[in-house]
Amino acid sequence: MGISGSKKVISHGLKHCTLWKADRSPPCRAVMMALDALNLSITEVDVNMDKGEHRGPELAVYNPLQTLPIFKDRELILNDSHAITSYLAARYCNSGKFLPKDPGGRAIIDQLMHYDSSILYPRFRAAAYPILYQNCKYVMPQQVCAIECAYRDLECMLVGRTWLGGSWPTLGDITIAATLSTLNVMVPVDPQRYPRLSSWLYRMSEEIYYITANKKGLGEFSRRLGELLEVNKRVTC
Amino acid sequence: MGISGSKKVISHGLKHCTLWKADRSPPCRAVMMALDALNLSITEVDVNMDKGEHRGPELAVYNPLQTLPIFKDRELILNDSHAITSYLAARYCNSGKFLPKDPGGRAIIDQLMHYDSSILYPRFRAAAYPILYQNCKYVMPQQVCAIECAYRDLECMLVGRTWLGGSWPTLGDITIAATLSTLNVMVPVDPQRYPRLSSWLYRMSEEIYYITANKKGLGEFSRRLGELLEVNKRVTC
Repeated sequence: MGISGSKKVISHGLKHCTLWKADRSPPCRAVMMALDALNLSITEVDVNMDKGEHRGPELAVYNPLQTLPIFKDRELILNDSHAITSYLAARYCNSGKFLPKDPGGRAIIDQLMHYDSSILYPRFRAAAYPILYQNCKYVMPQQVCAIECAYRDLECMLVGRTWLGGSWPTLGDITIAATLSTLNVMVPVDPQRYPRLSSWLYRMSEEIYYITANKKGLGEFSRRLGELLEVNKRVTC
Repeated sequence: MGISGSKKVISHGLKHCTLWKADRSPPCRAVMMALDALNLSITEVDVNMDKGEHRGPELAVYNPLQTLPIFKDRELILNDSHAITSYLAARYCNSGKFLPKDPGGRAIIDQLMHYDSSILYPRFRAAAYPILYQNCKYVMPQQVCAIECAYRDLECMLVGRTWLGGSWPTLGDITIAATLSTLNVMVPVDPQRYPRLSSWLYRMSEEIYYITANKKGLGEFSRRLGELLEVNKRVTC
């Protein structure tokens, strides 16, 4: 576990805030993208999940559920990425650009975040965990099917829209981009079947915070998955 | 599908708002409890899920995902119960009693709602749907195990607390009570193993909005489950 040395120079430093994270994890990358989008800099601590550091006694105090990310702002401790990103935007960003201040606008973003929480991320977990932790050598067919269903949902949500949550990218887009870009590694988003979703993901991949805060961890996830599938292939030969 | 006739006399009427709901559904009951807690009255339309009314063309316009509840406030349409209850509290309740106005207080409630979204409700669905829709005659052992894990999480979250989200019941407690009271029908919360959770559920069951807006639908769910298990038992005899 060590303080991340890769942080860019960003204007608004919050020395009293700390994020414990692993770049490979989509929820951690959602928080990291939100920080860069909101132009906020906080202390970031890398946690090695392969060594089980997130289950150690130091972090158990902050999160009995033993998940990442963990966020601390003085006395406030949060463990859910959606709650963390919304908090950062509501507390430290006056513009409301990424999280509207009016209740109706915010409700649209909340709804997207709950779609990620209840549908998208659980389907990522169900597809990825057997490969990462249970020696499975492929994405199981029922998981591919569930992920394709989610792609259809999102394709439908993008009818008549450039972004998921409004006229510009918001925390809703950022949250879903973190999970979707990772799902895309396992079950590629077919541009023929999902043209809107495919274009949206391409647009998101050009946003500066996606490049600074999502790309590296996504690459790490992709490499780790490739290694495991390769190892598993060898085992089964 | 018909306008609900069971609504109590409540002070603040919002004639421009409509909720399509089924009392048996925990997310619908979460919204109904929030409405009563916030002292709001809107048009409520009962949708018969057994007849597939939620998948009909009239409601598909409002919710391509074909789920309930559906909420409409003039041009704003929402389908996620957590986004709906937060919107109602933020838009129509000045006190912040059920959803704090400060970002830190709200983040705690958001986090509880995302726990419901990502863990509690998916485990309800995984346990209940095979019984409700796939002729299964019992809660499958792996689902019992997953539900007991969630009970342990919640028991842990209640250490040193009377309520989940603060010094009094909030939208976090209301949301979780809707799902947990339903899980309790399938996998009873053992007061010996989960004394805090059991006491919390008892306290919630005494709140007036629980009595007015959760009890009836919970009874319906319980009876329906009993009938199905009974029918299935007969089939296997």
